[in-house]
Amino acid sequence: MNPKRIAAERAVEFVKDGMIVGLGTGSTSYWAIHRIAEKVNEGLEIKAVASSRNSEDMAMQLGIPLIAFDEIDIIDITIDGADEVDRHGNLTKGGGGALLREKILAANSKQFIVIADETKRVELLGKFPLPVEIVPFAANLTINQLKRLQCDPVIRLLNGKPFMTDNGNLIVDCKFESIPDPEKLTKQINTIPGVAENGLFAQMANKIVTGYNDGRIEVKER
Amino acid sequence: MNPKRIAAERAVEFVKDGMIVGLGTGSTSYWAIHRIAEKVNEGLEIKAVASSRNSEDMAMQLGIPLIAFDEIDIIDITIDGADEVDRHGNLTKGGGGALLREKILAANSKQFIVIADETKRVELLGKFPLPVEIVPFAANLTINQLKRLQCDPVIRLLNGKPFMTDNGNLIVDCKFESIPDPEKLTKQINTIPGVAENGLFAQMANKIVTGYNDGRIEVKER
Repeated sequence: MNPKRIAAERAVEFVKDGMIVGLGTGSTSYWAIHRIAEKVNEGLEIKAVASSRNSEDMAMQLGIPLIAFDEIDIIDITIDGADEVDRHGNLTKGGGGALLREKILAANSKQFIVIADETKRVELLGKFPLPVEIVPFAANLTINQLKRLQCDPVIRLLNGKPFMTDNGNLIVDCKFESIPDPEKLTKQINTIPGVAENGLFAQMANKIVTGYNDGRIEVKER
Repeated sequence: MNPKRIAAERAVEFVKDGMIVGLGTGSTSYWAIHRIAEKVNEGLEIKAVASSRNSEDMAMQLGIPLIAFDEIDIIDITIDGADEVDRHGNLTKGGGGALLREKILAANSKQFIVIADETKRVELLGKFPLPVEIVPFAANLTINQLKRLQCDPVIRLLNGKPFMTDNGNLIVDCKFESIPDPEKLTKQINTIPGVAENGLFAQMANKIVTGYNDGRIEVKER
């Protein structure tokens, strides 16, 4: 039993005919997208928007019909993974670098369903460095401001060069000791000029579906 | 007497040898940059960083030595204009479209000096639509979220096409009735996923230099 896969497939049961569906990004969303594609091939009628070029490409290859953002006002349901989930349902996301687009989808969805395997559940957020998306202009000054929040920020690299997001920005992975108040930290980070978004999803998830190695699936409503 | 010019020239008196100087953008900063260039040609030794490509080009043409952001840790003094200044020294900026870079400079300056003519002084901010910089991805959803804050948002156009900032983003001009609490509104706007920055500069100015039509200059410390 793959705990990511069973969580993802359970979450896809909430997708119904006629819905606009937001597709997440990453190794757990991979299973959700594949299950949605199976159901589409069996007759499910939905339209999808994607949180990354990767997921968009995957959806196209699998035959999931896509719709442009400017043709919709709201997303009915978004299913996406997380890097960490605390017991209040707060998340960190952005390990895959798509946090800004993922957060736009989550914030504009009637239902935001998080899928995770049991390794993602934590008491307090912060073991996983918090990804922060910043504009490249004067990036070192923005990083100085992040340091004032008592974290250790590191520019994410890919093949030895700064990683670029789909929005043309940089990702700074910020190691905090722990994150006891995600809502407060979100405001502190997002009011730093130069920060486009951060990977904390405080009080955004409506359902959290967790898959365990022994095959159990837990669905938590919020 | 040009009230913009006298305010700008008064502000430049605070620039001293050895300083890193942040150059603003717009019709009042134009005079500050020209006055700084005069002083440089007379022997003033400074290095400058600019908040826009326009101001950078102007500085280069006028012989102001520039320094790269990654060679500095902090800016000594930034002189920049504003679209509105309330009596508490809160500003709206961004009429010129450079708000994000201007705000990065202001936030990373020991001294942030605002220069304005008397027409910019207002009791409450908000007559001037508040510019908000947003990423192009799913822009209509981000605009929906801005509407929830009780404003009327309009995408800024240039020659009939969406205006693009130096960061590759859009500007949405948001008409509020008035803005009684700029700090609160800044947090509300900047925590909307998709918003890169907004044009409210709450409690950021250290000095406000206002030029009057009759030739008077007022210097207000904060």
